[in-house]
Amino acid sequence: MSIETLLYWVGVAAVAVNALTGVLDSARRQMDLIGALLVAVATALGGGTVRDLLLDRHVFWVVDQTYLAVALGTAVLTFFIARSCRVPPRLFLIPDAIGLALFTIVGTQVALQWHAPWLVASLMGVITGAIGGVLRDVLCNDVPLIFLQGELYASAAWAGALTMITLQEAGVAPVYASWAGMAIVLGLRLAAMHFRLVLPTLPQQRKG
Amino acid sequence: MSIETLLYWVGVAAVAVNALTGVLDSARRQMDLIGALLVAVATALGGGTVRDLLLDRHVFWVVDQTYLAVALGTAVLTFFIARSCRVPPRLFLIPDAIGLALFTIVGTQVALQWHAPWLVASLMGVITGAIGGVLRDVLCNDVPLIFLQGELYASAAWAGALTMITLQEAGVAPVYASWAGMAIVLGLRLAAMHFRLVLPTLPQQRKG
Amino acid sequence: MSIETLLYWVGVAAVAVNALTGVLDSARRQMDLIGALLVAVATALGGGTVRDLLLDRHVFWVVDQTYLAVALGTAVLTFFIARSCRVPPRLFLIPDAIGLALFTIVGTQVALQWHAPWLVASLMGVITGAIGGVLRDVLCNDVPLIFLQGELYASAAWAGALTMITLQEAGVAPVYASWAGMAIVLGLRLAAMHFRLVLPTLPQQRKG
Repeated sequence: MSIETLLYWVGVAAVAVNALTGVLDSARRQMDLIGALLVAVATALGGGTVRDLLLDRHVFWVVDQTYLAVALGTAVLTFFIARSCRVPPRLFLIPDAIGLALFTIVGTQVALQWHAPWLVASLMGVITGAIGGVLRDVLCNDVPLIFLQGELYASAAWAGALTMITLQEAGVAPVYASWAGMAIVLGLRLAAMHFRLVLPTLPQQRKG
Repeated sequence: MSIETLLYWVGVAAVAVNALTGVLDSARRQMDLIGALLVAVATALGGGTVRDLLLDRHVFWVVDQTYLAVALGTAVLTFFIARSCRVPPRLFLIPDAIGLALFTIVGTQVALQWHAPWLVASLMGVITGAIGGVLRDVLCNDVPLIFLQGELYASAAWAGALTMITLQEAGVAPVYASWAGMAIVLGLRLAAMHFRLVLPTLPQQRKG
Repeated sequence: MSIETLLYWVGVAAVAVNALTGVLDSARRQMDLIGALLVAVATALGGGTVRDLLLDRHVFWVVDQTYLAVALGTAVLTFFIARSCRVPPRLFLIPDAIGLALFTIVGTQVALQWHAPWLVASLMGVITGAIGGVLRDVLCNDVPLIFLQGELYASAAWAGALTMITLQEAGVAPVYASWAGMAIVLGLRLAAMHFRLVLPTLPQQRKG
């Protein structure tokens, strides 16, 4: 499989998975169908949109209508499934972690192909992976997962992006490096959720 | 009247109307003159700015200073009128609905002229119409009207945009299709406010 | 010193100062190292990013990796210094005012060189100066300083930008006009903090 084909399908899968998490999250806020669809679209397309704007590329879903159709289709399907059967709330976190892994790798690869410097490219991966979820949490009026301590949300994404870049610099083929990066993001995120890993924090202070 | 002339004047009117709602809304938050002006500018120019960024066009108010001047002028005028006479609070919702209708149609038409696919173009209409109000509500620390149940905010915009696109596909001249689209957005929004129409929602759930 | 050299170093200094305020602010929210780094990066690069997107320029830190490296380096350094010694909370407001002054002038000058109309250019200065701090406050879940009454946050930036534009129109060399603009922003902001200056507000009203 070529790297272009891999990235295309990983991108479509990431859009679908993120649209699903958007609808599940909006359920907690009593939004109606259209509200849930808008949250789903923002969650699914937000990260890649910011990446494309920053890189001065054409926005991916404006050029190719497929992504928008996939996001809306998945959202409507999820909406009616979630109406008829009760979804266990924690289930929500698994597709969210998968979406983070998929989008982080696609975002980093797109930035590298656009000849962004490596540090910028790794940040583009974090942005593509995390912004959709941040938008979802802000629209649903939650504290974004990315800023909660002990979640390793952005850290997992950044570690995966940097690993993938390092592997490719060392000569590993992009397809294999991408799979390795995805595994690292997903593994770290799930491990953080399970073991409550923490990074150092500042002692709490107050503004005068 | 040509479609270009119509869109230009509808755009200027939409900017003025949205600037007015921004100032009225900021009054509830004890903002000072400059704070009210900034909220008015964000409300008036926000939706079209996001549309232009997504379509990779030049941002409309950066190219033509008229829009910024109209927004600031309307805002200052509204500020001093609102200081001297008490405005009935519900009056606020009428210009808000008019602004939604005007911006939705301008946004969709601009996207169509830019050769965006129809589904993308209809979403651009919703974005152009609704984002200004979302920015205003976020800056004034309200729950955005667009996400409140029973307001049919985005639904009205989307219905109007899709109607206009369908009419044009069927051969109706863009000027008439635009007027029809505006009438639908405004009619649905006012009807929703009056009759408290609702769309289906998901049963409420909590995240574990 | 040429205006280009001045603007480059003022830009780098502004990025460093804003990254510092981002880390200090995140300390009040018990964020971990990566959370603090992300807030610092958003604070340091947010304003210039919005300016570049609006002007349709290449985003400054995507083209030149230096800015991102300076932001991350300053943030890590601040993080470990702030861990080992207690920082007086009000100290935070001084670098914030300096960052506002530096970014406002850089933002306005960049917009002028891009041949933006003068009213648009002055607003670009306010946006470049203020958006970083707004992002920081939103991410740290504060009410943005810019919307607090009696802070003269945006007013100081706007006054400095307009003064600089007027001086240049009157024939003053851009380097001197820039220093004068910075002095005005910083002076007004510090004076507002010290004397609690206020602008007129609207009488409070409620939405029906």
